[in-house]
Amino acid sequence: METKKWTQLWLDYHKAYEGDCVWETKLEGFSDSQVVVANALYEFRRGIEALTGEMVPDSGKDKADEGKTLTLTIQNNKAIPSEGYHIEGSEKGVLVEASDERGVLYGVFAILRQIGCGKKATEVSETASPSNPLRMMNHWDNMDGSIERGYSGESFFYEKEEIVINDRTRDYARFMASIGINGIVINNVNVKGAASYLITDRYFDQLARLSEIFNDYGISLFMSLNFASPIEIGGMDTCDPLDENVIAWWENKVKEVYDRLPLLGGFLVKADSEGRPGPFTYGRTQADGANMLGDVIKPYGGIIIWRCFVYNCTQDWRDTKTDRARAGYDYFKDLDGAYHDNVVLQIKNGPMDFQIREPVSPLLGGLQHTNQMLEVQIAQEYTGHQIDLCYLIPLFKEVLDFHTYCCEGKDTVADVVSGRTMGNKLAGMAAVINTGNDMNWTGNDLAAVNLYGFGRLSFDTTLSSEEIAKEWIALTFDLPEKEADVLCKMLLRSREIYEKYSSPLGIGWMVTPNGHYGPSVDGYEYSRWGTYHRADHLGIGVDRTDKGTGYAQQYYKENAKMYNDPKTCPEELLLFFHHIPYTWMLKTGKTLIQHIYDSHFEGEEEARGLAADWDSLKGAVPEEVFDRVKERFDLQLDNAREWRDQVNSYFYRKSGIADEKGRTIY
Amino acid sequence: METKKWTQLWLDYHKAYEGDCVWETKLEGFSDSQVVVANALYEFRRGIEALTGEMVPDSGKDKADEGKTLTLTIQNNKAIPSEGYHIEGSEKGVLVEASDERGVLYGVFAILRQIGCGKKATEVSETASPSNPLRMMNHWDNMDGSIERGYSGESFFYEKEEIVINDRTRDYARFMASIGINGIVINNVNVKGAASYLITDRYFDQLARLSEIFNDYGISLFMSLNFASPIEIGGMDTCDPLDENVIAWWENKVKEVYDRLPLLGGFLVKADSEGRPGPFTYGRTQADGANMLGDVIKPYGGIIIWRCFVYNCTQDWRDTKTDRARAGYDYFKDLDGAYHDNVVLQIKNGPMDFQIREPVSPLLGGLQHTNQMLEVQIAQEYTGHQIDLCYLIPLFKEVLDFHTYCCEGKDTVADVVSGRTMGNKLAGMAAVINTGNDMNWTGNDLAAVNLYGFGRLSFDTTLSSEEIAKEWIALTFDLPEKEADVLCKMLLRSREIYEKYSSPLGIGWMVTPNGHYGPSVDGYEYSRWGTYHRADHLGIGVDRTDKGTGYAQQYYKENAKMYNDPKTCPEELLLFFHHIPYTWMLKTGKTLIQHIYDSHFEGEEEARGLAADWDSLKGAVPEEVFDRVKERFDLQLDNAREWRDQVNSYFYRKSGIADEKGRTIY
Repeated sequence: METKKWTQLWLDYHKAYEGDCVWETKLEGFSDSQVVVANALYEFRRGIEALTGEMVPDSGKDKADEGKTLTLTIQNNKAIPSEGYHIEGSEKGVLVEASDERGVLYGVFAILRQIGCGKKATEVSETASPSNPLRMMNHWDNMDGSIERGYSGESFFYEKEEIVINDRTRDYARFMASIGINGIVINNVNVKGAASYLITDRYFDQLARLSEIFNDYGISLFMSLNFASPIEIGGMDTCDPLDENVIAWWENKVKEVYDRLPLLGGFLVKADSEGRPGPFTYGRTQADGANMLGDVIKPYGGIIIWRCFVYNCTQDWRDTKTDRARAGYDYFKDLDGAYHDNVVLQIKNGPMDFQIREPVSPLLGGLQHTNQMLEVQIAQEYTGHQIDLCYLIPLFKEVLDFHTYCCEGKDTVADVVSGRTMGNKLAGMAAVINTGNDMNWTGNDLAAVNLYGFGRLSFDTTLSSEEIAKEWIALTFDLPEKEADVLCKMLLRSREIYEKYSSPLGIGWMVTPNGHYGPSVDGYEYSRWGTYHRADHLGIGVDRTDKGTGYAQQYYKENAKMYNDPKTCPEELLLFFHHIPYTWMLKTGKTLIQHIYDSHFEGEEEARGLAADWDSLKGAVPEEVFDRVKERFDLQLDNAREWRDQVNSYFYRKSGIADEKGRTIY
Repeated sequence: METKKWTQLWLDYHKAYEGDCVWETKLEGFSDSQVVVANALYEFRRGIEALTGEMVPDSGKDKADEGKTLTLTIQNNKAIPSEGYHIEGSEKGVLVEASDERGVLYGVFAILRQIGCGKKATEVSETASPSNPLRMMNHWDNMDGSIERGYSGESFFYEKEEIVINDRTRDYARFMASIGINGIVINNVNVKGAASYLITDRYFDQLARLSEIFNDYGISLFMSLNFASPIEIGGMDTCDPLDENVIAWWENKVKEVYDRLPLLGGFLVKADSEGRPGPFTYGRTQADGANMLGDVIKPYGGIIIWRCFVYNCTQDWRDTKTDRARAGYDYFKDLDGAYHDNVVLQIKNGPMDFQIREPVSPLLGGLQHTNQMLEVQIAQEYTGHQIDLCYLIPLFKEVLDFHTYCCEGKDTVADVVSGRTMGNKLAGMAAVINTGNDMNWTGNDLAAVNLYGFGRLSFDTTLSSEEIAKEWIALTFDLPEKEADVLCKMLLRSREIYEKYSSPLGIGWMVTPNGHYGPSVDGYEYSRWGTYHRADHLGIGVDRTDKGTGYAQQYYKENAKMYNDPKTCPEELLLFFHHIPYTWMLKTGKTLIQHIYDSHFEGEEEARGLAADWDSLKGAVPEEVFDRVKERFDLQLDNAREWRDQVNSYFYRKSGIADEKGRTIY
């Protein structure tokens, strides 16, 4: 473990104003024997003291003799929706109304956030309740301490196949609660080795402790499950979900688990994907698999989250008929309505895999009678490994705002995954998390904005990318307005910059195989992964229209029509849907090839702009933060240059068409 | 370790004829207290009994009463060159003349070889002495048991950082002696971790035992050395070869080593290469480093073998001036004549790195006053991983037969590395070996031909590829003439087939990065390794003429002129020396692009021919050998198809020029 103390991220409160009051706290309809409420009071005390210098003595202690007294009143109001809160400052102090413990905790964090963002305690005011019932983090942590696609050190949950619980665990729970996260999956969806034994006696004691720490901050603990557990830990020769003995095994197993872990929220399952076992092995459907587990866990109030990332990962690159983008819809759409009530499908935002630009998955809203959740990735697997700056909230916002046309009115992805469209309760958002045991949690200090931002966005999908960025900056740094504005603008343009210097117009995948950092234009072109750009000397792109793979037809007709025609297809996705000649004229009046050249030169230049802006913050941000981030920018500039030159050279060498501006292409 | 007994390779004698005599043995001028001579007698006995059924009772035992008696007479004849032999069969038996113990051993193995190839013992006849003074195997075995670029299992020398000595060790020494190998480097040239401690007390006992086993079969043990040993195991802060304390450290260390390992032949050193430490770090020359060690080891009769594989491995792909091919000559030519007498430079056959086709390194013969050895690789790193069949002796023969024009007359590489050109004694050939602890030693049973072949060729560079192949087949298998001929022809055409379906006309490197099996046309194109093909929509190849990198000018003028002009450059190396348009007309009357298509379609088809020929040997070769090799051919066919399709698609997509024959290109 690290010897240096970890940071407190956005809870590392700096003085917002110099207060002159003393606080008392009052509970009405709640009790401080409710541990989440007690923690809310603890957080209030810790936050107020750091933000204002005002003391919040433990209740029961004598009031201070001098000065004005303010009161934090926490009141039970059944009219407030579940997990929601109303906060209202006044000259008497602050009132928090909520109908449950989580609402109290979120209300208190809302007070602290508003103070951190510039309000006096007596001025705070907000009525809020979560947009999404489920707001989850997915850890891809392995029990040997490694993290699949982790860019911030090793796991803080595991070391040498044991579960680690220490002060850091509680801090992590505090951070998550402060942004409204209410469910955490603690192990990699690829469940192998020791992780298969998380549902055995070997780990129950530690898991129970962990689930309590989480629970005390309003968070349910979830685990990823090995669908082949009956074989791997049960010693059976099948895991056929319709086999009576298998079902009986699961019934016993889940009973055992809930006996020991009553706080468990449920299980996340990656089945029949990238070599993981699943129901297909036995000629069963995904619904057969998910429903069996759903039924087994139902008596305990648990849920099954079933991932839709199922595709053929041994494709022949010569095969232009098979289209990985189609796979999710093809595998899951027919079973719409067949999934049981306590099963929810977790669907990646795009049909491929977390590229910097993809269309929205047609499964989202395409399923009309099935619980569904949106999965995004804040671990920057394909978007710069938390070396390159890439603020992802704008990407998530685009997904949430996308009109699926699944119905009149409530047809955006935000509507669908919140449960508003179908009136279902099992719905929400999950993020593959970007944390590790680095002392700053996210490797790049600035990558914490994605962690913060995902939580805030999943709680309130109406927040804008800019609002979230400003909040995070205000809470994290102590910057004058001008410098805060510089940083905010850096964040807001970073995703477009990354997109500009990496793969063009939605085609994706021009990335170093396996590692996924840095360019390799043909790296996935002749692979088995279904990830091709099909560039030749005349053009590039994948024909996914009705004349090609037909993927565009998986959308409702308005979108299908739009995507099917290169003239109406949004240009940022042009190469995802169409094979386009280099000489094609874009709406900007540039040819496709010139767009590739221009965007790559611009992207690299703008990356240098980001680095220069960061340099301008020297002295305004803590020195160690400045140095750490500067190191990352140095690497990003190398990366941006490499992307620029390799992509430009590749297309120049292939097309033979020169850059109009005569810049250096190799 | 494997549980099944390992094979005896070409020493797995099968009955050559049914003899009816009994042998006695006679030593004249030798004694069976000479352990190499004793081992020669042991091998004779073991071989004769298996090959003919005739008994060779231990000397001193009573002769058999009945039957004819033949005599093996081993006679000391000072007129025979060192390590040479004269064998002569007659009605009385066989006479072996030699002037030293190794000559006796080689003579005996020659008798057995001739019998295995069809002669009666009484008919054998040969006068031979080694073409090369040094005939060495280089193991890239690591002490954790792994083998760098090993394709036949794990190391049989090391397990968990300990030296393993068992019956297999002696068998290995026997095999090596039977093909004339007289020096073996037992550890990877990349000396790291535990291997740095091979020159410490920790390993001396085991090394002494190993060196004795080797010595008993006429083999000197060598070790790869960590040039930074004074730092890594000596605790010093420098390994500057001109530093007095460093020299003193080495003097003590080498004295200690020779006190414990008096049989040690010397050290092999990879310095200043691919991240290995070396004299450049201290502003010293390669000669400074090599000579220091040479001087230190001189009192013990040891030698220093210094590798010339020094190049910039962090090149920028944009840089078209730097040329990795130039590096060896650029770094070593200026110091020609500066190396001490007991130092020998080990030079890879080509200027790059063991590609299927490269020109001969211009250092070979380019150095005129320096001991030099030729290094080749029988581990099939870039030539099919001992999955694909690739008989490498034809490649080595081309290198040996190459006229360097370094002088009148004795100017071939064979002349240079044998010592004939300069009259030097420290000269020879080394091979990076292709063995591991697989029970058949070489993974693919057929890959043993390269092991056998290298030994035989280094002993007698006048042998043809066909002669060597026939010997190996006759000794290894018990095949009728027709089947032996099928197998021989398979071997002889295999290298050309591999070349046809992999990278075209000497350009090399279109291989999967790191692993080096299978195609990735651009895999090394934008890398740091100095390995580029520079293909664009008009043509491909690296201009290494006087108008390009100037590499061609490193040769003597006859070759420089030939290579400099695409019209006189051998076409199999055309793309190594020239950037050539796809429409360039080759001497065959085909365009370059059509040649690429044709050769790749042919190569794949011919690979299928190899597999079919192997199928025809079912029943003629042992079943388990048949099955093992058939499995490899199945993989080779997948590989050949992948190479064909990726290379053809790549060039079709890039050039836009269709195949004249309209075959399927993707």
